Amino acid sequence: MALVKPVEPADASPEVRTVYDDIMQTRKTDWVNNFWKYQAHHPPTLERIWEAVKAVMAPGALDPLVKEMIYVAVSVTNNCEYCIHSHTAAARAKGMSDEMFGELLAVVGLANETNRLANGLQVPVDEVFRP
Amino acid sequence: MALVKPVEPADASPEVRTVYDDIMQTRKTDWVNNFWKYQAHHPPTLERIWEAVKAVMAPGALDPLVKEMIYVAVSVTNNCEYCIHSHTAAARAKGMSDEMFGELLAVVGLANETNRLANGLQVPVDEVFRP
Amino acid sequence: MALVKPVEPADASPEVRTVYDDIMQTRKTDWVNNFWKYQAHHPPTLERIWEAVKAVMAPGALDPLVKEMIYVAVSVTNNCEYCIHSHTAAARAKGMSDEMFGELLAVVGLANETNRLANGLQVPVDEVFRP
Amino acid sequence: MALVKPVEPADASPEVRTVYDDIMQTRKTDWVNNFWKYQAHHPPTLERIWEAVKAVMAPGALDPLVKEMIYVAVSVTNNCEYCIHSHTAAARAKGMSDEMFGELLAVVGLANETNRLANGLQVPVDEVFRP
Amino acid sequence: MALVKPVEPADASPEVRTVYDDIMQTRKTDWVNNFWKYQAHHPPTLERIWEAVKAVMAPGALDPLVKEMIYVAVSVTNNCEYCIHSHTAAARAKGMSDEMFGELLAVVGLANETNRLANGLQVPVDEVFRP
Amino acid sequence: MALVKPVEPADASPEVRTVYDDIMQTRKTDWVNNFWKYQAHHPPTLERIWEAVKAVMAPGALDPLVKEMIYVAVSVTNNCEYCIHSHTAAARAKGMSDEMFGELLAVVGLANETNRLANGLQVPVDEVFRP
Repeated sequence: MALVKPVEPADASPEVRTVYDDIMQTRKTDWVNNFWKYQAHHPPTLERIWEAVKAVMAPGALDPLVKEMIYVAVSVTNNCEYCIHSHTAAARAKGMSDEMFGELLAVVGLANETNRLANGLQVPVDEVFRP
Repeated sequence: MALVKPVEPADASPEVRTVYDDIMQTRKTDWVNNFWKYQAHHPPTLERIWEAVKAVMAPGALDPLVKEMIYVAVSVTNNCEYCIHSHTAAARAKGMSDEMFGELLAVVGLANETNRLANGLQVPVDEVFRP
Repeated sequence: MALVKPVEPADASPEVRTVYDDIMQTRKTDWVNNFWKYQAHHPPTLERIWEAVKAVMAPGALDPLVKEMIYVAVSVTNNCEYCIHSHTAAARAKGMSDEMFGELLAVVGLANETNRLANGLQVPVDEVFRP
Repeated sequence: MALVKPVEPADASPEVRTVYDDIMQTRKTDWVNNFWKYQAHHPPTLERIWEAVKAVMAPGALDPLVKEMIYVAVSVTNNCEYCIHSHTAAARAKGMSDEMFGELLAVVGLANETNRLANGLQVPVDEVFRP
Repeated sequence: MALVKPVEPADASPEVRTVYDDIMQTRKTDWVNNFWKYQAHHPPTLERIWEAVKAVMAPGALDPLVKEMIYVAVSVTNNCEYCIHSHTAAARAKGMSDEMFGELLAVVGLANETNRLANGLQVPVDEVFRP
Repeated sequence: MALVKPVEPADASPEVRTVYDDIMQTRKTDWVNNFWKYQAHHPPTLERIWEAVKAVMAPGALDPLVKEMIYVAVSVTNNCEYCIHSHTAAARAKGMSDEMFGELLAVVGLANETNRLANGLQVPVDEVFRP
């Protein structure tokens, strides 16, 4: 059960409402997902995180689908249930196929395994990998 | 300092040497990086992990550079020094620019932040995100 | 679902009952929360952890509310659902306001982000920060 | 070894220089610590993170020293060497005594222990802790 | 809710069915647990992971119960709910008593605590511990 | 570099000295390893943790070597460099062979991989695994 109450758009202060409107407009949807409705318990965080997400997830040198898959990789590694669901849905909406999702998890799983093998043996970094 | 001694190619058993040769041939290089030389203390792991890396990192539905960036994302989240260095080098070798690396870390950082905001409030998964 | 059965006060051995009584007396309540009822499956752990919690969480150089907020920070970072709920409740009982909780999570989120930016670039520690 | 080169103030672009100047002015110092000089490899991240740190770490409902100690708690849990050093130094500069540091780590250690005991048994959250 | 649909044995492709049959034969059971039915959404991962589990968990220098307990230790540390349940059940099936489970969690909890005390102080490794 | 100064036995207060003496007597050695010399900056933690280690790591339902290997599994998963070194050395002193260490890491690596595959798909726990 969540630790704070969600702020529904109808009950939002003008400050919170402005963020919700920007979320819906940017994403071209008419609803706001729970993540934002719960962050609204602390408006400065709602605003700061929305600005960060908008800036970081915008198309740039990496395409938006690649960014979503990187988000999923981190969320799976940290076991954030909400984030796994929301960013997997976002990645699927941006074109991730079943096959791509299968490969994404295969890399995430293997990376978690070899991370521990490298750390467990305290393998020294090869000179050639140092920039 | 590492916990086991690396097995240099010159000292490798035929079993280990076979893996080293496949690594060099697959990667079209004439050297073997430390990760493998330290895994060689336990040949079944060396062999199993090399087969897994070869299969998982091969081109498929995801392109190899995307896979390397997902690997970096996991390694940064787990703080595996060796893995951060080796997979960042591999990603650069496959075409990751400074700009792409900057955006990759921005996504990784932000995902680690929002993962905690979602977990800290125990935000419930929206129905629409459930497949 | 839990992996062991909780030990209700009525069914507790004298050894377990002694710890339960101390918990209720120390906290001035007439009930024992689940954490302890499940640890009772292994009495030495029940006893050791209760003694540790009593000693570590007692007022000292840090005030008890600050200690609870540090506990929440760790529990959110580790995603321990039980601990997030119980220590957030304890912090609220000791005076944490909505505003303070909002700022607490903001720091936890940001720290998790910058931790990855520092690790991802392997930023060297400045000389001046070394004691 | 770091993965990118630090940008020294003398070599900074006007955009980066503006952030450096704000860091020095805000903190009333005449130097910039490594964290920022390495983030400067990607100016949008440098700028975004500095704005976030300035906003989140400013005095508010929690006092700045408490915020630094929460930052240390997260950094220790994640094992971010740079962050442990820099935020412990910042906490000391804001008044953290040896005794307070000792108690801070005691809480962090214990929370990490009980987090695993709660997760290991999958202890259900008590009704009374649910808001 | 899971992110993909499980593949029931009756609906399995011959490729997936072969792995299921090997799982049931190796474990001398007539059912397949969810972990495998969900991995079947990506047959190469199903096959690779089953081969890895079969090889790594087979009797060797460590006895199978010790391996299961090490698996539980990692799963508790990572808070993988499924893995905690399945590997605790497997360890019980191989002879883990209540007392052994209690001690297992006591070590896992304590190790997570002292890990943070060592990292929090950045304790240098003693020369004598370096091989 | 460590964040506090170690307390050498010659400089120890009687309170700290008593713990050091008990460590040396219990372990039948004539030296104290760094972990304890750095904890001595906060004597209540030194004393509490030593009592916990003595109780938890004593022979019981699990043999001491199995406990050390569980300790290593957690330390590798958390990437605690000090703890990996010290508990691997302790496990070797109690009889862990190269082969056993190889298998230990193989299980730790694989568990970290499958933990993410289970979490990534949010695989539901089978009814039969619920006690």
